[in-house]
Amino acid sequence: MDLLNDTLKTIKAANKEFSIAAQKHLDNLTKPLGSLGRLEEFARRLVTMTENKSPILDKKVIFTFAGDHGVTAEGVSAYPKEVTKQMVLNFLRGGAGINVLARHAGAEVVVVDIGVDCDFGDAAGLVNMKVVSGTKNFTREPAMTRDEAVRCIEVGIKLANGYAQKGYNIFGTGEMGIGNTTPSSAIAAILTGRTVAEVTGKGTGISDESLINKIRVIEEGIKVNNPDKNDAIDVLAKVGGAEIGGIAGIVLGAAANRIPVIIDGFISTAGALIAYCIEPKTVDYMFAAHNSVEIGHKAMLEKMGLEPILDLDLRLGEGTGAALALLLIEAGLKIYKEMATFGEAGVSSDIIN
Amino acid sequence: MDLLNDTLKTIKAANKEFSIAAQKHLDNLTKPLGSLGRLEEFARRLVTMTENKSPILDKKVIFTFAGDHGVTAEGVSAYPKEVTKQMVLNFLRGGAGINVLARHAGAEVVVVDIGVDCDFGDAAGLVNMKVVSGTKNFTREPAMTRDEAVRCIEVGIKLANGYAQKGYNIFGTGEMGIGNTTPSSAIAAILTGRTVAEVTGKGTGISDESLINKIRVIEEGIKVNNPDKNDAIDVLAKVGGAEIGGIAGIVLGAAANRIPVIIDGFISTAGALIAYCIEPKTVDYMFAAHNSVEIGHKAMLEKMGLEPILDLDLRLGEGTGAALALLLIEAGLKIYKEMATFGEAGVSSDIIN
Repeated sequence: MDLLNDTLKTIKAANKEFSIAAQKHLDNLTKPLGSLGRLEEFARRLVTMTENKSPILDKKVIFTFAGDHGVTAEGVSAYPKEVTKQMVLNFLRGGAGINVLARHAGAEVVVVDIGVDCDFGDAAGLVNMKVVSGTKNFTREPAMTRDEAVRCIEVGIKLANGYAQKGYNIFGTGEMGIGNTTPSSAIAAILTGRTVAEVTGKGTGISDESLINKIRVIEEGIKVNNPDKNDAIDVLAKVGGAEIGGIAGIVLGAAANRIPVIIDGFISTAGALIAYCIEPKTVDYMFAAHNSVEIGHKAMLEKMGLEPILDLDLRLGEGTGAALALLLIEAGLKIYKEMATFGEAGVSSDIIN
Repeated sequence: MDLLNDTLKTIKAANKEFSIAAQKHLDNLTKPLGSLGRLEEFARRLVTMTENKSPILDKKVIFTFAGDHGVTAEGVSAYPKEVTKQMVLNFLRGGAGINVLARHAGAEVVVVDIGVDCDFGDAAGLVNMKVVSGTKNFTREPAMTRDEAVRCIEVGIKLANGYAQKGYNIFGTGEMGIGNTTPSSAIAAILTGRTVAEVTGKGTGISDESLINKIRVIEEGIKVNNPDKNDAIDVLAKVGGAEIGGIAGIVLGAAANRIPVIIDGFISTAGALIAYCIEPKTVDYMFAAHNSVEIGHKAMLEKMGLEPILDLDLRLGEGTGAALALLLIEAGLKIYKEMATFGEAGVSSDIIN
């Protein structure tokens, strides 16, 4: 709890003066004013987040947190729970979607066991920071204790601090956990004030019938546990998940270290929303990677005032959207740093009318 | 005219059987069915376009065609005509937006003078394939003769054939030409059947008053020249532009060589629409890079049934959107080629419900 409290004390809102200076430079580059649209926004925000007029993005990392969910016993997922473990091993061998896309974006993938219900032994490349061996079935009892929820968040903060110290300058979030759209929809409903049905989708691909069951399960979990909507840690503990807590911690740690963090899709956004409800200033350090197919995603992004970068009908998670968005954020920075100014290029900047 | 006719004879529709085989492979990769959304579409289309079950994208080129427009005399642009020349020199020095983004995407930029109203002498790196020294003011006479329009298209075809022979495996289109949203809106109106006002925007950033003038100028140009909407070459000649013809030629040449071509923004799409109206099968080889801020863009994409990849409020042109989209198309191919299958990874593909 000390680490979390100390981290919260160091988070400051981004300094808007850097944004103004960055836009001034962008307006002097050889292009019509504002014509590179959101690429200009990405550059401006990177300058503002880092308080650095010449930000560097040379060490990039995507944290993929894995956890299991007791609520899978209620038939909320299309895949058996064992797939969480199998996919973690796939990540470690480099064969999953996130491995391919992180390589494409020049980012490393750090795979973290924060809550998988199995013993990986000394699996090479896996970061073992297990807090729980799967959460409890939240239709019967809280998914985690409050202490466990805080420890999950602190795992994320520790990783963020460690990678900040090692010189990494941008983070992405990702996750793997069979059943984890269910706690994410629960969090979305509670923290955005929407109904469960409004924020619950088909996850990896369940039937219409199973979707009705999933909504009922989430409603039941909220009723049984009665989480306090004004206490995001209580929400995370009662109806959340370990990997969602880890992501919240990465976001808090990123903000404390003034490091930009790219939020992947639906589940990552649930984690980011937990962080935002603990400390709203964290949003100044977030990029929203993409607009997920999951119907509850938009409500959470709107709550934080974030506009997604991509809309490619993705619903895989793992950090895949974050890796793709990284390519575009980096494009914005390169524009800012590498384009010629009107003066340098001898191009007329006079506008006729 | 012989080159154009010969090219048209060799364009075939893409073979859908390759699409089915590609999706079968995608469905066997370690992810829920369809969960990589449009990345899967990109991979499937690359396989189909190239009729190659393992396509390669290692030699990438963006063709940026430059041309001037006599219609700028009517006050349709925010920038003076001289900026076309200045920006071409900026491209050659590597300081423009397209240079930065093409480097980011690992693509070369080929800058082609197809219609600039100035003598570049022997400017290093410039491809001199000038057909006209600027078009004529289409409010008074046709922008080009029919012969000139055909020669512009054939410039594009020659480049496409040459780069295909050199082993390039993906093309992007781009352009620079002060005033060229005006002919593009004229083409959009004629070939989509929308009114001029519905497809005319503010280009590089003109005032509301200038926009009214721009619409009037385009309406006047269409009235004076009366282009035949069933003859895309007539439309290109009478109210088009040299760089738009060059882009149409790249698209036709790409389709003839079974090479994927990424269409940049508004002006490039006008060129692609000319190609499409000459030979609708060309659409099988096109990717639409992004949704431009220019209001007429969507109508043209809809006419061809293309869904843009990005929506980043871009309105620079040059090929910048094509360079960004290339990063995502390549991501789709890497997913297809590099991800592990369920069998390889020992991941359960059984769906519970």
